Formats: sequence, C-alpha cells, structure tokens
Amino acid sequence: MESEVVVKARAAKMGAQELALVGTDTKNKALAYLADELERQSARIIEANHLDIAAARNNGLSEAMLDRLKLTEQRIHDMAAGVRQVIELSDPVGRCLEEWDRPNGLHICKVTVPLGVIAIIYESRPNVTVDAAALCVKSGNACVLRGGSEAIHSNTALVAVIKEALKAAGLNPDIVGLLENTDRALVKELLTLRQYIDLAIPRGGAGLIRMVVETATVPCVETGSGVCHVYVDKDADLDMAVRIIENAKVSRPSTCNAMETLLVHESVLAPLMKKLVPVMKQDCVEMRGDDLARSVDSAVLAAEEADWETEYNALVMSIRTVSSLEEALEHIRRYSTHHSEAIVTDNPETAEAFLRSVDSAAVYVNASTRFTDGFEFGFGAEIGISTQKLHVRGPMGLEALVSYKYVVRGQGQIR
Amino acid sequence: MESEVVVKARAAKMGAQELALVGTDTKNKALAYLADELERQSARIIEANHLDIAAARNNGLSEAMLDRLKLTEQRIHDMAAGVRQVIELSDPVGRCLEEWDRPNGLHICKVTVPLGVIAIIYESRPNVTVDAAALCVKSGNACVLRGGSEAIHSNTALVAVIKEALKAAGLNPDIVGLLENTDRALVKELLTLRQYIDLAIPRGGAGLIRMVVETATVPCVETGSGVCHVYVDKDADLDMAVRIIENAKVSRPSTCNAMETLLVHESVLAPLMKKLVPVMKQDCVEMRGDDLARSVDSAVLAAEEADWETEYNALVMSIRTVSSLEEALEHIRRYSTHHSEAIVTDNPETAEAFLRSVDSAAVYVNASTRFTDGFEFGFGAEIGISTQKLHVRGPMGLEALVSYKYVVRGQGQIR
Repeated sequence: MESEVVVKARAAKMGAQELALVGTDTKNKALAYLADELERQSARIIEANHLDIAAARNNGLSEAMLDRLKLTEQRIHDMAAGVRQVIELSDPVGRCLEEWDRPNGLHICKVTVPLGVIAIIYESRPNVTVDAAALCVKSGNACVLRGGSEAIHSNTALVAVIKEALKAAGLNPDIVGLLENTDRALVKELLTLRQYIDLAIPRGGAGLIRMVVETATVPCVETGSGVCHVYVDKDADLDMAVRIIENAKVSRPSTCNAMETLLVHESVLAPLMKKLVPVMKQDCVEMRGDDLARSVDSAVLAAEEADWETEYNALVMSIRTVSSLEEALEHIRRYSTHHSEAIVTDNPETAEAFLRSVDSAAVYVNASTRFTDGFEFGFGAEIGISTQKLHVRGPMGLEALVSYKYVVRGQGQIR
Repeated sequence: MESEVVVKARAAKMGAQELALVGTDTKNKALAYLADELERQSARIIEANHLDIAAARNNGLSEAMLDRLKLTEQRIHDMAAGVRQVIELSDPVGRCLEEWDRPNGLHICKVTVPLGVIAIIYESRPNVTVDAAALCVKSGNACVLRGGSEAIHSNTALVAVIKEALKAAGLNPDIVGLLENTDRALVKELLTLRQYIDLAIPRGGAGLIRMVVETATVPCVETGSGVCHVYVDKDADLDMAVRIIENAKVSRPSTCNAMETLLVHESVLAPLMKKLVPVMKQDCVEMRGDDLARSVDSAVLAAEEADWETEYNALVMSIRTVSSLEEALEHIRRYSTHHSEAIVTDNPETAEAFLRSVDSAAVYVNASTRFTDGFEFGFGAEIGISTQKLHVRGPMGLEALVSYKYVVRGQGQIR
C-alpha cells in the first residue's frame, strides 16, 4: 500500500502542474477567501488548538513551548492579516528577467516559473501552516506540510480552511497537503521523493535543520541557525555600540538574528564594558567572557570553548577580546553560521574591510543584526532565512520560491 | 590519518577565502599564464596522456572512450583558447545586483560573492580539468576536482600547469586541488564534507549524476541528462520540421541536448514520415516507433516502453503519434528529463500553449533543441546544463558559480 506521503506528494505534483498556469487573480481570490474564513472559523480553529494544548500539558511541554503552540483570536487575526499582505505582493511568476536576440535570430527570454512542490518541515508554531501555504500558493507552488505532532489538531483545522479556500477559487485542494501521520519515518520518505518534491525547507531549531539536510536527497534550503557576532572596533562610537549590542541581544533573544557573541577590540574593552555591563545587568543578560573581559568586570563568568559555537536563544552572551580586525575576522570565520555579523566603527576603511571579508548572508556596519528579516528588508514576506549560498541567501521572500525557464522563439533555426 | 580529500578540501577552503578578495586582474593574469603554459608544455602533457591511453587500451576501453580521453596538440590548443575566452568574460564577483534604502535609513546592497569551494566530479575528458578550473578561478571559487581514474596521468599533468599558473600570479596553488586517489570511497567523503565543500557539480553520464545526487549532503547541481522531445504539430511547416528533427538528432547525438523522441500529430504523420524517413535513412538513424508510425513506414522498428525513457546518445530515435497537443504535453510530462523540448508549428496559439505548459529548462518554438548550450545562448562559457530548478537552470555560465550577500550600512539603527 502506498504511504500517505506518496499519495499526498503525487497529488500535490498534479496540483502544481495546474497551479503553474493559473493567473494572479485566481490565486489572490483563494488567499482573500482564506483570510476571511480564518477569522470566520476562528472558534473552530481554537477548539482544535485546545486539544493540542491539553495534550502538550499532559506531555509536560514547557510554558515557552505552550506559548508557541497556542492560538488565540488575536493570533488568528494576525495570520489573516499576514495572508492579506501576501495578496498585496506582486506575483513572482511569469516575469521576464532578461531577454535578448542571438545573431542567428533566436529570441531568448528568461521567464520566472514556480519551483513545483515544496516540502516544509516545521515545529510547533501553527501559524507557519498558514504562512507557508499562502506564500506557496502566491508563488504558484504546491506544498506538502509536515508540522510537529504536538500541533496536529491545529494544523489539520487550518489546512481544512485552506482547502476550502482553494476550492472556492476553483483550485485543486491537493495543492496544499498536510501529513497527518507525524511518524518520523515518513519525513525521511518525503525528503527522498525526488520525483515529486522540488524543494524542502526546514523551519525550526538546529536539530531539525541538520536532520533535514542530512536526510534529504531532494534539494533543500538550509534556514535559520544563527551564531551572530557584533564586533566593536577600536574606532567605534561606544554609546552606539552599547545600543546595538543591547538591541541585538535583548530585543528578541529567541530569534536566529540575535547576537550571541560580542567581539571587542582590546583597546576599547575597558571603556565599553563600563558602559555595557550596567545595561546588560538591567536586562538580566548573563555574560560569559574570556580572561581579559573577566579581568575588567567580575560580573562576567568564564566562557568555555562551547560558548563560541552556541546559539543560546536566551539572555546569555559571550564576550571575546581581540587585538585586531584580523583576529575578529578569524573568530567569525571559525564560529559563524554565516547568518549575520555586524561591525561598529567610525573608520570607513575598517568597515569596508569587514564587509568585504565576512562571508555571511548579511553583513552590517553600525546597525543591529536583528534587521536580517524579510519584512525589515522590505520583501513583504519571509519564508525563512537561508544560511546557504545556493539558490537563495539571507531572508527569503516570494522570489526565493521561483525558478525560471528559457523560452526560445525561432523561425526554423538549426545548429 | 586524514584522507587526501579532507586535506585538499580544507586547503581549498583556505584558498577560497583568499581568492574571494582577489581582483579581476590577478585572476586574469593566472589564466593568461595558464593558457600560455598549456601550449608551451604540450609535449609533457601529451606524454602523460600517452600513459592513460596505453592503460585504457590494456583495459579494453572502446574507441569512442579512447577518443574522449586522447589529447593532441590541437586539443591542447583548444583548451588554451577556451581559457583565453574566459579571460574576456566580465568578472561575476562584486557586482551590485540591487540596492535600496529603507525608511529607517539603512542602505542595503545585494552584492555577488563566490560560492566558496566547488567539487567537480567528472569522467574521462581531460579538457574538463582545465575548463572547470578556469571558470572557478575567474568566479573566485576554489575547486576540488575528481576526474576519472582512466585520465589520472593527464589530469595530474594539467593540474601541475594550473598550479604553476596560480603561483605565477601570486595566488595560493591549493585553490585548485585534484584528487589523485581515485578510489570511489573518497568521492563519497568529498560529497559529504559540508564544512569545506559549498557545491558539487557532476559532469558525465546519468549513472554518475545519480550517484552524486544520492550521495551528496553538500548542495549539488544536477547536470546533463537529457531525454529531449520535438513535437510536430498539425500546423507545422513539414520541411522546417524535417530540418529541425535532423539537426536535433544527427548533428551531435552524444550530447544531452540531442532529440531522443519525436512526437507527431496524427494528422501530419503520413506526410511528415514521407519527407523524414529518407533523410533519416541517409543519416543512418534507427527509428523505433509506435504502431501508427510503423504502419506508415516499414523502416520503423517497434518501440518498447523503455524507449520513451532512454537517452540513446546514439543515432537512434523514437517516434510517437499523438492526437492532440494535450497528449504531446502529457507524454513530455511523463518522460522528459526537463532539459529541452521543441514544438514545430505555425500556429501562434499552439506555440504559446506549449511554451507555457512545458516545464523544461529550455522550451523552443521552431528551433532545434541543440541550442541549449552556454555558448549558443551567448554566455561565453558553460560549466554544464542544469536540469534542476534550484539556483540555476539550463546552461550554466559564470553567473551560476556565484552567490550574493547583503551589505547593510547604517548609522546606529536598532530594531
């Protein structure tokens, strides 16, 4: 017997072939209906969510996890608002990226097309279900969603609404599939179904991402994991540095664009720490540093090797003193996950050297790493943040979900 | 003890970090030296090649394989000319693809950067060694080359010249590494070295490509395999159709952009075959068709199911009769490798429907599929033809070998 994965992935592939030929209006109609129905059916969705919450409590999930899982009227309204934002975005499909004529008279046009079927593997937040489905539909892609088992009732209720919306717009409901069997073995099957799945996107913690990347034989985009650095140069404005460090660490420590490690030029270590430590204490940030940092302020605990490679996702930061830009770059080369790094400096030459040398998706001068985000970049959407270099890097908007083909028009040319 | 793979991949990674910061002039200087030295040292290279040829003869390789392997003065001259062409191409690194300001004053610039280290896995043709190295150097990428064991002496000699050229331009010779141990187990190690390898590109037959794609945990670009179709519509100019079919099948049957299957609308089957069969017979093309095609001309042998999915790489073609465009599209959907497909028709509506519906890297109206080629498209280079949708699709020029990063300049912005 065929597994649920094969059945749903094949159906999604058929749906994708139809969806690729559908105009913007129809896709937007489905999304508008979806936004309205999410709000209209919020009670039913919240009821399903209660089942997940009850089970999660029984299973002893942390309050933080329960909060991620929980749906409220407000959160459903926010989902609907997100879908309405996607409607406003321009259709990424069917754009001519480039066109040219060859000396033999052939006319070549490079035109954007959907990728096909996207598998999205994610964890507890049910809003990803609606987000991902909306972005896929808008970009002409079918999707197979595999959410966490702890959110299965919520996700099932949400996908039911999504399928209603697709049908209401005359689209094939198989375009959005949800794996209801959350057995881990099925994920592996999904990630190796090369005939049906065109791209896999993991959204979640480092463990999930590693599992997807190592299991998949389908192409995938690695998202998320961020050990981000802020380097305070000897020529830095130290007040600006403190503001940027505080923002990068404290404003939302659970995100991948939060700072984990502060690198400080030794010549400004003492004056920087004098300004920084009181702020960090007030923000309840635990500081772990090298010997030099500890010698300046006793509030700094001892950092171990593991600290330099840890994405804390919490109010903890590591501090390392360096004697030069080159030493800072060397540290970043070794420990960065190639997500986001910033330098604080008033020296334009040092700034340019940093920008040139750091091999990360986003490199900043005098700004917080927290800006690495599809909305902050102005893309109007975000399906994740790619830390790989292939296909798409950094915040992934709708453009990340399309490919292209070459359309070549001739009059009988042969080679 | 560390394997040759780890040692060379790590050295290439270090080299890549240096090369990413090197200007166009230095890269071109290395390439110019390489082109000159290839010609100057041709006798030494040919001597090494003789060892490979002798071993290949002993091992009973076919004449076709021996021809692929063989290096002559002329072929070395052609390699050098290829390298000089790469010098003329503009540097794909450091280009600002897009830049914009955000309302908060942040300036964002999306700038091209090299991918890092590219692993290239290929078969017997030693010219790939020089080609691939030249394109990697120009695009700021280091590479680890793994050629076929049958070409090891030739490849070693060529890489020695490449390393001399790198050194002459003041570059790190580790930028181009060659695996001298051609044990298959080392390929697997190479394809899973995620910390050092940024992209793997297989160049060769379907078996090699499948092995790479299934083994790799590093990102890879699938190249090459082509079951290409030409569809002759009911509204086709049949003389043009015959010219295109002959060109697509006969001009170079071993290439991936050659036609394998001819689809014919039933209403033009008889008149088309009347014109086509004599031409194909003269070209010594074996025809295998469905019952309808065979009923029209007894020269057509019986096609089996396997024929529709075979890349013959030879003077063999399959012929299938269809009763509509939709049936032709359905056949293509089922058997195409998403490489190149063409329609011959004078009906603009049918042409547009075909262009829209066929999901291949290149889709043609009234032209031969053989144009799917980096040089024919005007890219001035080709590192392979991608049949996947992620990152790059169709002929891969220098642009396929770069990624980008976001360079963000602020004045203390926080979120």
